[in-house]
Amino acid sequence: MKKIINDPENFVDEMIEGIILAHPDLVRTPGTDPRILVRADAPLPGKVGIVTGGGSGHLPLFKGYVGRGLCSAVAIGNVFSSPSSQQIFEATMASDGGAGVLYLYGNYGGDVLNFDLAAELAELEDVETRTVLGRDDVASQPKERAADRRGVAGIVFAYKAAGAAAERGDGLGAVAAVAQDIIENTATMGIGLSPTILPTTAKASFDLPDDEMEIGIGIHGEPGIHRGRLESADAIATRLVHPLVEDLGLTSGDRVAVLVNGMGATPLEELYVLYRRVHHIVTELGLTVEKRYIGEYATSLEMAGASISLLRLNDDRLALLNAPAESPFFREG
Amino acid sequence: MKKIINDPENFVDEMIEGIILAHPDLVRTPGTDPRILVRADAPLPGKVGIVTGGGSGHLPLFKGYVGRGLCSAVAIGNVFSSPSSQQIFEATMASDGGAGVLYLYGNYGGDVLNFDLAAELAELEDVETRTVLGRDDVASQPKERAADRRGVAGIVFAYKAAGAAAERGDGLGAVAAVAQDIIENTATMGIGLSPTILPTTAKASFDLPDDEMEIGIGIHGEPGIHRGRLESADAIATRLVHPLVEDLGLTSGDRVAVLVNGMGATPLEELYVLYRRVHHIVTELGLTVEKRYIGEYATSLEMAGASISLLRLNDDRLALLNAPAESPFFREG
Repeated sequence: MKKIINDPENFVDEMIEGIILAHPDLVRTPGTDPRILVRADAPLPGKVGIVTGGGSGHLPLFKGYVGRGLCSAVAIGNVFSSPSSQQIFEATMASDGGAGVLYLYGNYGGDVLNFDLAAELAELEDVETRTVLGRDDVASQPKERAADRRGVAGIVFAYKAAGAAAERGDGLGAVAAVAQDIIENTATMGIGLSPTILPTTAKASFDLPDDEMEIGIGIHGEPGIHRGRLESADAIATRLVHPLVEDLGLTSGDRVAVLVNGMGATPLEELYVLYRRVHHIVTELGLTVEKRYIGEYATSLEMAGASISLLRLNDDRLALLNAPAESPFFREG
Repeated sequence: MKKIINDPENFVDEMIEGIILAHPDLVRTPGTDPRILVRADAPLPGKVGIVTGGGSGHLPLFKGYVGRGLCSAVAIGNVFSSPSSQQIFEATMASDGGAGVLYLYGNYGGDVLNFDLAAELAELEDVETRTVLGRDDVASQPKERAADRRGVAGIVFAYKAAGAAAERGDGLGAVAAVAQDIIENTATMGIGLSPTILPTTAKASFDLPDDEMEIGIGIHGEPGIHRGRLESADAIATRLVHPLVEDLGLTSGDRVAVLVNGMGATPLEELYVLYRRVHHIVTELGLTVEKRYIGEYATSLEMAGASISLLRLNDDRLALLNAPAESPFFREG
């Protein structure tokens, strides 16, 4: 296991310490628990807070999207593990500016359990919460079970849009509606080429023969829908894009945002080779790409692979994507 | 060889096509040769152009730093290979706004040869050029042979500062002096954990046993100064930082910018674990970190590893770093 780490048990806390040392103008810990980050100016009086959270190992997800025009706080778990309900509750209280708090995170059992418990704790303190779940991974469940899908990279669109809505002063119901609207119009599918090695166990997150790829893999190595010989970038683009177009029901004349996300070890060069074909496929279908993101937005430590997300755009969604935002890992405007 | 590519022979051209499709507002090809990228608004009348170039496989280096307040053009070679003199010449002509052109690139034999030839071609067209070489890799040569050192990630500081100087209207001599000043105050050292696989040959760029690291490795896998068992992040930080401090002659009270650069496959989490210790070491030495960059700035495809660069700051250098800039891969202000 070749990692630049110290004691694996300290991996998460040392990483968070590094983030705070590097970006003291943007984020801080609100209390004594180092596993909670809030934007430096939180809470914002009269504005809706947005709390996210999840396991470590996915940078920039989740902790990288705390900042102006994005989330107001994050509760941070161990690698691939949920944060505790108490941590989520503390993040909630640090985010509450009196207008309530949106919980916006990926659809994983442990996270749902702990966010729901935190919501009960918040209610006892008269802080109203609403929950919207990222569930954009179309490979994880068929469309008729879309509510059970896992959340992956597409949640970044929801952070950006809901964060912009909160920043302009929308109420809790409106901010939640923006997040829900984005989630319902976002679809993602990924491909894995090599596994992640977990720091504490030194075990691979999955096994994959040297000449194979897995289409539809999750960001923790959850099984996909097709395993076979590694194909060309163009063939991979076809395998990933068409199910997304079908799932969202996109047709000629529709407008989209495209996110080509690196899972960790895949070079940026390969993401651009992939984007090239994605661009051609969606253009040939009569879709217009009005916004694109290419890089690492939601990773799985050093997993080699990529995912593609499509968001159906309209004027409102595009304006929210284009609104100013700033976090240690994300800038817009 | 697990890569998301098509025919390896088309890797570079398809990657460039992806960049142009993704960022048409920021960069374009000036003529018919796809291996040249210029900022969308080049040339800028009356302003100094800055041309860089080098082999592919190092994104965001080199082509990622073409934009406002950065370089005006880049000539792009095959993976780990120099661009041709003709390509550099065309990038020069596309950058020339009448105030001359600075050549700013890393100190590698093939690049030097071709940039020098391009300078002669430019002279025939009455375009004045000056050359400043990145040579920040302290592991590549001892201090008494500093002029022969390789250029690695630290050139990003020079792009940023020289780009800001050109943008504000400095003349060719002044822009070159800014670049030279940054180079002379920048030192970098890297560590490699796993090799790059070259797309065309499918060969590893170097061999390294499973439990070893190489300190001082170059971005093409050039040999370093120490090979041994993989150590902790804190021990690695110590091995990398102290030679930089010594080389630059930094002493208590000095101000620095820190760049913790991922070589490709190393997770962002590990870069923050590394930054944490770097921050503590330099602070304990009485240095003040006034600017920091953590992420992938100069890579070697999917090589696992990282480098640390220090730049001695003064008010002028810090102001140039903080000036606005925008390229597909870099934003400031």
